Amino acid sequence: MNTTSISSKLSSSLKYPCLSLHSTGEKIKLKGAVFKVKALSGFAFLQLFSHQKMVQCIFEGDFSQTGIKEGSCLEIEGEIREASIKDPFIFYSDKEILITTFKILSSAKAPMPFDITKKILNIKNDLKLDFRPLSLRHPKERAIFVIQAKLLEALREFLGQENFIEIRSPKIVKEGAEGGANIFEFEYFGKKAYLTQSPQFYKEFCVGVFERVFEIAPVFRAEKHNTNRHLNEYTSIDLEMGLIDSFYDIMAMETAALKFVLEKLQQTCAYELSLLGVTLVTIGDSIPCLKFWEAKKIVQEYFKLPPDLDEDLSPLEEQKICEYVQKNLNSDFVFITHFPTNKRPFYAMDCPENPNETLSFDLLFRGVEITTGGQRVHDYDQLVEKMKRRGMNPEDFSFFTIAHYHGLPPHGGLGLGLERLTQKLLGLENVKEATLFPRDITRLTP
Amino acid sequence: MNTTSISSKLSSSLKYPCLSLHSTGEKIKLKGAVFKVKALSGFAFLQLFSHQKMVQCIFEGDFSQTGIKEGSCLEIEGEIREASIKDPFIFYSDKEILITTFKILSSAKAPMPFDITKKILNIKNDLKLDFRPLSLRHPKERAIFVIQAKLLEALREFLGQENFIEIRSPKIVKEGAEGGANIFEFEYFGKKAYLTQSPQFYKEFCVGVFERVFEIAPVFRAEKHNTNRHLNEYTSIDLEMGLIDSFYDIMAMETAALKFVLEKLQQTCAYELSLLGVTLVTIGDSIPCLKFWEAKKIVQEYFKLPPDLDEDLSPLEEQKICEYVQKNLNSDFVFITHFPTNKRPFYAMDCPENPNETLSFDLLFRGVEITTGGQRVHDYDQLVEKMKRRGMNPEDFSFFTIAHYHGLPPHGGLGLGLERLTQKLLGLENVKEATLFPRDITRLTP
Repeated sequence: MNTTSISSKLSSSLKYPCLSLHSTGEKIKLKGAVFKVKALSGFAFLQLFSHQKMVQCIFEGDFSQTGIKEGSCLEIEGEIREASIKDPFIFYSDKEILITTFKILSSAKAPMPFDITKKILNIKNDLKLDFRPLSLRHPKERAIFVIQAKLLEALREFLGQENFIEIRSPKIVKEGAEGGANIFEFEYFGKKAYLTQSPQFYKEFCVGVFERVFEIAPVFRAEKHNTNRHLNEYTSIDLEMGLIDSFYDIMAMETAALKFVLEKLQQTCAYELSLLGVTLVTIGDSIPCLKFWEAKKIVQEYFKLPPDLDEDLSPLEEQKICEYVQKNLNSDFVFITHFPTNKRPFYAMDCPENPNETLSFDLLFRGVEITTGGQRVHDYDQLVEKMKRRGMNPEDFSFFTIAHYHGLPPHGGLGLGLERLTQKLLGLENVKEATLFPRDITRLTP
Repeated sequence: MNTTSISSKLSSSLKYPCLSLHSTGEKIKLKGAVFKVKALSGFAFLQLFSHQKMVQCIFEGDFSQTGIKEGSCLEIEGEIREASIKDPFIFYSDKEILITTFKILSSAKAPMPFDITKKILNIKNDLKLDFRPLSLRHPKERAIFVIQAKLLEALREFLGQENFIEIRSPKIVKEGAEGGANIFEFEYFGKKAYLTQSPQFYKEFCVGVFERVFEIAPVFRAEKHNTNRHLNEYTSIDLEMGLIDSFYDIMAMETAALKFVLEKLQQTCAYELSLLGVTLVTIGDSIPCLKFWEAKKIVQEYFKLPPDLDEDLSPLEEQKICEYVQKNLNSDFVFITHFPTNKRPFYAMDCPENPNETLSFDLLFRGVEITTGGQRVHDYDQLVEKMKRRGMNPEDFSFFTIAHYHGLPPHGGLGLGLERLTQKLLGLENVKEATLFPRDITRLTP
């Protein structure tokens, strides 16, 4: 028998090279995808997306004979030369590669339906999303999702340091945590099942197991809104913390997390941020904090809006609160606390001094709510009481309240929308631009 | 207006203490959940699960007057004393805390329906899963998922080092990547939609964008099997790599990843592994590698099994191959390569020398397949040809093949089942034991 085996040591050919470590005159071998070709008489410039960096290459000779096209993948050998490149798409501005030999590894059948080599991908959003596998190849589109990935990487680092354990809760559920009609239903082996709106029940279970937990996972909302702030499937960053003193502990954890992440991104995404022309927001010593009714009153007076007694914040109010806070308190972030009990779910803890308010908060960022959180009822009797007051049947939720029945610590948590955070950080107009493959009421592909 | 704000610096009360850094005689303040009480005459032992570690506490006085029960959460103040504790559940074997004052933060309504303080949670699997929020509080159950979380943490560290970008693909899709009937269907705003079986199409798109990508996310299979190796919702660890030389590159990446992860777990989960009595498998210099038909023949001859010409491996064959490899090649892992074309999906690349075989592999571990992977067809014409040969209509997949039409690098990838890997690493009998809240054909709660 001829036994082969796979080495557990990665060969150097699988390691990504870093051109910064190579010097002028050195020979180098690279693979990459041809992003842009500019053929001139007797030579051509090639922009090669190689090992996740755009590199300028020079071909000397009759380019029309090479068979190389935009979209081809190549293996090249070449020599590193000094350069002084202004093109912002090119990562190494001081180096280029003179191609000595090349091999075509794969080819495109046809050119792109739109020009992705332009500095700005100036096409309509719908077209961009219809052709997502192609539009994402534009360096600025790609940069958005590199930043998003690094954002999560930084967040996980912070959460690890602060003893949060990552959990994975089921997406197929028997009850929605948020209630209401905004839920996708399907048949599960002869039973009715739903797609989860939130991992709420599961993270509360897990507080009783691990104390501090987080989950970063898809949630589903069958909302019929098709706005620039809605998605029918989005990524929810969920935290839940046990043994808290108050719901301010949760806000403190989020504030520290955001500060950590934003500072980290400055280091890890300097190139991508500059490509997008984004100056990242910073969090100073603190994030301001307004009570719900206070905030409503302030914007009504400040902006001379008609009084609005609705027990929730409208999109306009969210915008106006942020505008006010930006101008007067010099912050892009603001916590709104003590939301009315009527508009918060049954598991939210009421204020001991005022049962019409909850120990809850939203975090607003640049005009939009990116987080909802608060303290939860941990006491079984209180929870059952609250459900009854709402006309709910506690029996229907016995699979949930069993955790409370056998003891849960005082706890609370939050849900943070990854795509909205990304959108607002990078100044994108539509949340779908911060989603690799968005789902809305008309969009099921790609 | 009274403006408050939330500091961006975490207060020390939110930082987890480490008892190892405290010395005998020191005063300390802790919060935690009472796991076990042993009341004796004039004093009591309390096992407190505090800041994710089990700590032994001593109460002196008449315990019956305290109101403290198993499942209560406490804030205690106390003094650190030297100890010599043998109980494996206690994390700090050389320290205990003499309680000086305590406050009850929350209470259980009733004792657990089974004794979770026993060294082994000796209840039936179904009961364990029915009462998951409670059974998970057993230290050994908890340890499984701490290890699982640390496993993913280590894997992400490796993938980050090797330039993989994390992506997030939609779980609501229009077409299944795997085909077949094992798919959950539902109504999406008047259209038919499905729950994803695999992020295959999306990770191929993203290879054209980021070169190397990974996703760790739920996938859904409407399989009616209810065995110890099946789940209807599980976590798929998906990699996809562009610019590969051959499908051996993917196997090399997986081998290096597993070696990295296993070595890391030795450090990060020493306590949990010892609690479970698990000696972690190691990967030496390499993982052996057998061709599909070779492997079939070997086990048939070695174990004198009847010839089986089925173009797939049966569960029995997977077991027997592993047994053979363990005995003869001294490895718990084995790659099986060159699976028959008929049993692999349309996007698998055929062997240039033999179109009946594909450039694909499975990784078997301790009797079960944990990974399926291989090189994919990157050439548009070849892919369309292959679809036609299978009687598929290429038009139906134009949303997928558009990436190939406009150029994709030679690429391949793999899918690794997190729960099966965890199960087999820790020697658990059933894959559901390696799932926080498993879904099977009868189980939709908790």
